[in-house]
Amino acid sequence: MRELEFDELEALAIGAGVLGTGGGNHPHLELMCAQAEYNRGHRISLIDPQELSDDARVAVVCIMGAPLVTKERLPEPIAICKAVRLMEAHCGKPFDAIMSIEIGGENAFFAMLVGMELGLPVVDADTMGRAFPEAQMASFAIRGLSVAPFAIADIRNNSVLIPEAENATRIERIGRKAVVELGSIAGTCAAPRSGREVKDHAILNSVGRALKIGNAVLAARRTGSNRVDAVLEAEKGALLFTGKVQDVSRRTTDGFVRGKAVLAGRDSFEGRLLEIDFQNEFSVARLDGRRIACVPDLITVLDEENAEAIGTEVLRYGQRVAVVALPADPIMTSAEGLPVVGPRAFGFDFDYTSFAEQLT
Amino acid sequence: MRELEFDELEALAIGAGVLGTGGGNHPHLELMCAQAEYNRGHRISLIDPQELSDDARVAVVCIMGAPLVTKERLPEPIAICKAVRLMEAHCGKPFDAIMSIEIGGENAFFAMLVGMELGLPVVDADTMGRAFPEAQMASFAIRGLSVAPFAIADIRNNSVLIPEAENATRIERIGRKAVVELGSIAGTCAAPRSGREVKDHAILNSVGRALKIGNAVLAARRTGSNRVDAVLEAEKGALLFTGKVQDVSRRTTDGFVRGKAVLAGRDSFEGRLLEIDFQNEFSVARLDGRRIACVPDLITVLDEENAEAIGTEVLRYGQRVAVVALPADPIMTSAEGLPVVGPRAFGFDFDYTSFAEQLT
Repeated sequence: MRELEFDELEALAIGAGVLGTGGGNHPHLELMCAQAEYNRGHRISLIDPQELSDDARVAVVCIMGAPLVTKERLPEPIAICKAVRLMEAHCGKPFDAIMSIEIGGENAFFAMLVGMELGLPVVDADTMGRAFPEAQMASFAIRGLSVAPFAIADIRNNSVLIPEAENATRIERIGRKAVVELGSIAGTCAAPRSGREVKDHAILNSVGRALKIGNAVLAARRTGSNRVDAVLEAEKGALLFTGKVQDVSRRTTDGFVRGKAVLAGRDSFEGRLLEIDFQNEFSVARLDGRRIACVPDLITVLDEENAEAIGTEVLRYGQRVAVVALPADPIMTSAEGLPVVGPRAFGFDFDYTSFAEQLT
Repeated sequence: MRELEFDELEALAIGAGVLGTGGGNHPHLELMCAQAEYNRGHRISLIDPQELSDDARVAVVCIMGAPLVTKERLPEPIAICKAVRLMEAHCGKPFDAIMSIEIGGENAFFAMLVGMELGLPVVDADTMGRAFPEAQMASFAIRGLSVAPFAIADIRNNSVLIPEAENATRIERIGRKAVVELGSIAGTCAAPRSGREVKDHAILNSVGRALKIGNAVLAARRTGSNRVDAVLEAEKGALLFTGKVQDVSRRTTDGFVRGKAVLAGRDSFEGRLLEIDFQNEFSVARLDGRRIACVPDLITVLDEENAEAIGTEVLRYGQRVAVVALPADPIMTSAEGLPVVGPRAFGFDFDYTSFAEQLT
């Protein structure tokens, strides 16, 4: 267990943005909230999963909603705190630690803000190793652990509990509908996990992974070296494209942001086109019509200059960007993982091939 | 407290159908289930509200869903029993009696079937005095009692609990979405009510009202007198129309059956047209374009011959019918009631006038 330094907060924001793969919202605002908490004397305690006792009770939390909506209506950690309290009341037992469902985007920070608010350490792990649009796209569900009970709360006086469900997809669908009804933003707390379950089935040390990416970008900014290269080196990634955003079609339906972006190539990609589909997160990239990367691998659009990740909800005409691919966690590309988070789970009619294979 | 006689079951089905005002499903199937239970030796214990101790705990239950869906997928009392058990677990206290949210349609019988299954008496009361499409259209909500907590369960392994909500409409909307996700049919148990609350705020003796209507119809069938007149006499109702169904437009959206029926007049209504709007239940009747009855008054379409109620989901071309209006309970036409169950609550841009006034 260690306290995060003030300077690490910015690195975490950059890294979580990159791992958000276009979804999960860039945690600009949450970074400011966390910095304000630090200035008030609060600190984030990061605990390594291996330090958890086997019977520790871990609250797995997130803000659930459509990224575009969060631009008008800010999500608040207090909604998650209410969901955590509701789950404690339902189970009759308190939690020992907080963990984010996803390291990608603002949810990385919400776990931190909730940890500070409730005085609990935050586990250096998550269940996606990135951001995904749906709650069942998580390592615990892939490994067959029940996602129920599942608690949902908003900042007003509304809460919903799903005590049991046939499967994780059912929870995602019921929960999503409830969240839409609450204004497309709510805090959630999934089934309590034991320390043992976290150690066996979570994506371990993903907070550390985000920090590593962020620190590499910050170092490159200080030394004036290429920021995009810094991301690729930190994560064994590949450059898919550099270019300018030419067109974005986007709609918010059923609690998701869905659409497609078309990018016109620059530099070594001059004259070529990249198309990227997204459902909250980027899911498939096609170069001149040929598929070169797909879920669960991470496809991330970075500002060409400073390597800040650009979300699907703020992508717009004229942005100069670099598109990179980073490898998915092995749980996600396993035989159990692919039916849940591979291209078919997103409605595409083809099987997963890693970007490393597709680019060769 | 008394046991219902076997012969009263059919009377209850007829009366509940009439009070269903086109919605809530005619309880044909549930009548057969109840008769089968009687043949197995089970009995329905009907308890007068005044016999309840002030601190008795009453479970207020119903099947929630779209009537049309129940023609393909039969609702089951076991779903309600699961919701009742979930509520008991949430509150940590057992129930002493069962009560239906609505006396209209099959929910009158579901309370009976649940009572037999759980070995609990059924209160001679409901919260609507008829059927209404939405959960907040209930006397308890009108009188300001919280509808939360609210439990939902299906016959598989899915359940949803709404521990708290801003208001009853929010529960209706979240609950309705959850029910749609469960296949548009689920069992529900609303906030536990004390015996005192039931005595003060329920629609009292509405089971008795249904029995009275049903017995009148059965007596008319035996003696060969007019069955529709029997309904009107039992309930101080008015004949709105006799005619033939000419056109029905109907769609199932958002968990409701919505639409409009057009009837061509016969007998003394020859040459005239009646239009009836519905949302699960009939809401407004217009004779040659002039409004003659509207919610919360009961508008019911009866088979001309046997006075069986015809539901909005089975209304079809060629049926020969009598349309009758019956007076709403005074709670529903009170200053607090009309904003919740009057025409404006159904999206119409006019105020309530009783059918008695409109017909004169």
